[in-house]
Amino acid sequence: MAHCIAVIGLGSMGSGMAQSCLRAGLTTHGFDTRPEAMDRFVAEGGAKGSLADAAPTLDAAAIVVLNAAQTQSVLDDLLPRMKPGAVVLACATVPPDFARDMAAKASGYGIHYLDAPISGGSIKAAAGQLSIMASGSEDAFAAARPALDAMSETVFRIGDTPGAGSAMKAVNQLLAGVHIATMAEAMTFGISQGITPETFMEVIPNCAGSSWMLENRGPHIVEGDYTPHSQINIWPKDLGIVLAIAEAAGFNAPITQTALARYQKAVEMGLGTTDDAAVARVYAGEAGLKLPGDET
Amino acid sequence: MAHCIAVIGLGSMGSGMAQSCLRAGLTTHGFDTRPEAMDRFVAEGGAKGSLADAAPTLDAAAIVVLNAAQTQSVLDDLLPRMKPGAVVLACATVPPDFARDMAAKASGYGIHYLDAPISGGSIKAAAGQLSIMASGSEDAFAAARPALDAMSETVFRIGDTPGAGSAMKAVNQLLAGVHIATMAEAMTFGISQGITPETFMEVIPNCAGSSWMLENRGPHIVEGDYTPHSQINIWPKDLGIVLAIAEAAGFNAPITQTALARYQKAVEMGLGTTDDAAVARVYAGEAGLKLPGDET
Repeated sequence: MAHCIAVIGLGSMGSGMAQSCLRAGLTTHGFDTRPEAMDRFVAEGGAKGSLADAAPTLDAAAIVVLNAAQTQSVLDDLLPRMKPGAVVLACATVPPDFARDMAAKASGYGIHYLDAPISGGSIKAAAGQLSIMASGSEDAFAAARPALDAMSETVFRIGDTPGAGSAMKAVNQLLAGVHIATMAEAMTFGISQGITPETFMEVIPNCAGSSWMLENRGPHIVEGDYTPHSQINIWPKDLGIVLAIAEAAGFNAPITQTALARYQKAVEMGLGTTDDAAVARVYAGEAGLKLPGDET
Repeated sequence: MAHCIAVIGLGSMGSGMAQSCLRAGLTTHGFDTRPEAMDRFVAEGGAKGSLADAAPTLDAAAIVVLNAAQTQSVLDDLLPRMKPGAVVLACATVPPDFARDMAAKASGYGIHYLDAPISGGSIKAAAGQLSIMASGSEDAFAAARPALDAMSETVFRIGDTPGAGSAMKAVNQLLAGVHIATMAEAMTFGISQGITPETFMEVIPNCAGSSWMLENRGPHIVEGDYTPHSQINIWPKDLGIVLAIAEAAGFNAPITQTALARYQKAVEMGLGTTDDAAVARVYAGEAGLKLPGDET
């Protein structure tokens, strides 16, 4: 019998992950609070049936929702219905302590818990080429293997206990969030000195000042295209998680705090649902600079 | 007759650049305020003679000193002695306005001025593989060509007028300085959550959170080796230049300000002459964390 999986949360990441599972030959259920998203997935080949009916048949469930609160709500519904030995892959960015708490709860039902935050964006999700920063027991990894193979290009095995994966994801989000805002600060500073965004992107990716995010998001500013591949709104959430974890550990993270404030200002400017490269508009607005695509 | 160049300032960058000029077959003078540095270079094959005697014979002079004040001091000495049609390559990180002022002064003597800040570090300087962010006239580039060919792997031609090269260098230093401090913030945050520096460096360079500086400086922390390839002291200077330029342009650069404060704290801790990766010690000290190489 085919391995049976549910993907819960069919947003920009979850829908691609569910399609990758289908392509890999897994019996795949897709669940979402939006019925139209579920209907679309069934039309694409997804398995039919309610969560209540499907849960006892699942070998694995990937929870791809926005945050810890939504993850907990799904787990409260799901864990009592799943069969012992099945595995939950918790994919949202959450605090490490939350991951440890949820793993203990799952364990009480005989369910394995893989702390499995994802990275890579919607295009890699759809291609089955995500990076997954996973931690959990040998048994959790073994039970999750068909799902991990279907969804990911790289699985970083961070440790043997839930929490470590979420900690590494927080570290990565700290860096990624700061690097996007720093790219925006540097590019608009360059504009103030007569360096065009085009020249910036010709030179800096070949220099010591480059970052993965600079090379990925910089072209959005050059093209003046803020189609939201990843929304500004992600960053107050994710950097907020980072700072909550840091505060609990007595850790001072002033650069992260400063970057967070830039994103919060972008949200106040009404940019929350635009692409995160639009944090450059905060700087351009303050300094009276024009960005590519601005009306002259 | 061989092209004749002087390299003024035989520090970690200038001495390597002078050696690269020698290797390329240029008649190369080396000058420094430290007589022993000049003697060493003559022993390596450098041309003999005082700056006053050599200046009228020079086709090019590369000024590789610490800052704008030292650059101006060299130019005040050099420009009246050089022959018209020769070129000055000004390699220190300086404000764009300073570069424009010095270019005008050189022009008054019939000397070409190439605004030519350098990037790449001492190893690439010695190998003749620097990146140079240059701006100036066609004639300045033509006159500087033998020197540029000897010293650099990549010449970014940023524009036709002095100032643009220095602006791009400032942009690059903003990014590089922030990225080193952010790497330190993220790595020590990871330690606070049980992520070792080794695991950090195994995972993050393959993720969206990576930067050129993270990949270059992160291993120094893993190895606990703060041999100063690039000193902490560079950053209060270079980020100070960035912020002075920004302030003059009415540009708000809060992430740069925050990173600068981290380096200033490192200097206050007595770390100024250690490798810049040691900014991680600021974070470790605040949070009571141990770094690799710390006594247990």
